[in-house]
Amino acid sequence: MASKHILVIPGDGIGQEVTEVSKQVVEAIGQKFGHAFSFDYALIGHAAIEATGQPLPEETIEKSKASDAILFGAVGHPKYDNDPSAKVRPEQGLLGIRKALGLYANLRPIKLFDELLEASSIKAEILRGADILFFRELTGDIYFGEKGRQDEGATAYDIAKYSKYEVERIARKAFEAARTRNGKLCSVDKANVLETSRLWREVVQEIAKEYPDVTVEHQFVDSAAMLLIKDPRRFDVVLTANLFGDILTDEASQIAGSMGMLASASIGDTVGLYEPIHGSAHDITGKGVANPLASVLSAALMLDISFGMKEESEAIIAAVDGVLKDGFRTGDIADAQTDRAKILGTEAMGAELLKRI
Amino acid sequence: MASKHILVIPGDGIGQEVTEVSKQVVEAIGQKFGHAFSFDYALIGHAAIEATGQPLPEETIEKSKASDAILFGAVGHPKYDNDPSAKVRPEQGLLGIRKALGLYANLRPIKLFDELLEASSIKAEILRGADILFFRELTGDIYFGEKGRQDEGATAYDIAKYSKYEVERIARKAFEAARTRNGKLCSVDKANVLETSRLWREVVQEIAKEYPDVTVEHQFVDSAAMLLIKDPRRFDVVLTANLFGDILTDEASQIAGSMGMLASASIGDTVGLYEPIHGSAHDITGKGVANPLASVLSAALMLDISFGMKEESEAIIAAVDGVLKDGFRTGDIADAQTDRAKILGTEAMGAELLKRI
Ligand SMILES: CC(C)[C@H](C(=O)O)[C@@H](O)C(=O)O
Ligand SMILES: CC(C)[C@H](C(=O)O)[C@@H](O)C(=O)O
Repeated sequence: MASKHILVIPGDGIGQEVTEVSKQVVEAIGQKFGHAFSFDYALIGHAAIEATGQPLPEETIEKSKASDAILFGAVGHPKYDNDPSAKVRPEQGLLGIRKALGLYANLRPIKLFDELLEASSIKAEILRGADILFFRELTGDIYFGEKGRQDEGATAYDIAKYSKYEVERIARKAFEAARTRNGKLCSVDKANVLETSRLWREVVQEIAKEYPDVTVEHQFVDSAAMLLIKDPRRFDVVLTANLFGDILTDEASQIAGSMGMLASASIGDTVGLYEPIHGSAHDITGKGVANPLASVLSAALMLDISFGMKEESEAIIAAVDGVLKDGFRTGDIADAQTDRAKILGTEAMGAELLKRI
Repeated sequence: MASKHILVIPGDGIGQEVTEVSKQVVEAIGQKFGHAFSFDYALIGHAAIEATGQPLPEETIEKSKASDAILFGAVGHPKYDNDPSAKVRPEQGLLGIRKALGLYANLRPIKLFDELLEASSIKAEILRGADILFFRELTGDIYFGEKGRQDEGATAYDIAKYSKYEVERIARKAFEAARTRNGKLCSVDKANVLETSRLWREVVQEIAKEYPDVTVEHQFVDSAAMLLIKDPRRFDVVLTANLFGDILTDEASQIAGSMGMLASASIGDTVGLYEPIHGSAHDITGKGVANPLASVLSAALMLDISFGMKEESEAIIAAVDGVLKDGFRTGDIADAQTDRAKILGTEAMGAELLKRI
């Protein structure tokens, strides 16, 4: 029996709704396996701005550092999206916590549950068996370089930056993972145009020598965006920079049927943060229809990666598999074949999961 | 009868093979409609480096400026891709000519020929009727900002930059086009993270006021990458920056069945340049199997946009439609239903087109 302290940061929009379900799932796992999981809450994003004026209160960072793992929801609010000149923005909370905790590696597994083969816009025969693990660099690139205005606001700039060290440490994590999978790694860059990508490619070529058992290929990001849809099964581990990873993993959500199914783990040298890759989705907030499975699968990643609880993690995945096999769906993953009576809201889906744990 | 001077810049790899076919098609159109088309050739990319040491010889720029339009192939060579430290690179030729001629607007129409509905990895019912026109900004962004190394080469940087003026002029072109289509424009940026995107969004919001008849939406690039595959029919005109446009249009090639079908027009204030969106494809170079249709459709765009020859342009599109209807395919657009005897190489496909003009 282990004792672990989990910080829940629901954030904005549906982040609140889905994180509540995954917290309940983790509690149920604790009871079943006899672990003492304790929970605390903290604010981030729009919710934090409303309460404190800051997207990332100091207290949230302190509580994060004191926790064994973080269960994260989402940040964002349409108010800021339509006001490009807003100075304080919810996303600063998310970017800030990634930086403050040194979460440089964002793992995004893309795997299709068999039952969802028909939920995707991509043909089933193209998808069957696809299984990709993305390693997105998360604390560098154009996200964190200097940015600003010149010429009295008439020109804007953003600086993309990478050091060899930053590329090395994420590359090593990706190569290690490739070793335990199918031994293939695709590094994605734009080395025919960008200097940061040329450094990226140099470093990956260098590290590759330490892993002769891993087959490496390099793809330009435009080509990778095309190949992901044309032939997703050609990929095993994909290693890429912060901005390219943001774009490609959202795109790849279509391989898994829906964004509502995709979990992620952000890790560094200390505490890990687990979040669905979907956003705050204000268009469906408060309607009780959000798909909680991405958040629940993020909790499964947390048990596995941060706590080393393999069996417990698999119990969650089995529960997700179970509800899907029994025909239950949230709206985003329903298709023409779905029994209308089995289309559930967020809470009812949570209840079905709990029954199976 | 009009007299027009066309500069052919085949470039590298399959660029040579496909451009030859489209030149023949344009010649046939000239004969049929009684136009005096004259042609000249110029070098770029790896071919130019081999011949002159430069990816973009001065002579190529001079000939370009003296022409009425440019029929362009592709640039690139694997030699440089595997050597990130190469100082002279084929792509500098392409980026250089875009800049030298002020080709700031890259139009990429994504439209599926009915006969290719089954060639895509995306389901036919998702694709049917999809028709998107991309406006990709082509002479700014992280492509053309300062780039370099620091810390004795251990850190690399690239500066992304946009001025209001650069965004305005491409936005106006996109809004004008939306007016003649379904009146919908989607502007794609990453305004929740990038300052250049916030400037982009501000300017687009401003210009939108001049076009009250056009419905505008803003999408973040990650979300757009997802929606393009999930529901391509929701898009009409898509307006975006250089790097995002590079990624999204390659991805969108899957909507049209294959990259081998996609044409583009690069325009500015003077001469226009027409090129397929595919690259030099050295893996199939010299095998005579490259799909020439993207280049041929680029020639159709040239007749329409640069010469105002609507009927002539449509004659080319009808010829492409004709060969497809008659069951002819190149390998990249063949599917399980294709009669093996009708899978043609580059030249044979060209011959079928010429028969129909
Ligand atoms: C909300 C936003 C800043 C964030 C990002 O771009 O990283 C999100 O899209 C993600 O992928 O986690
Ligand atoms: C070859 C490369 C520099 C180019 C680009 O990135 O613009 C190509 O991908 C394109 O889209 O025309």
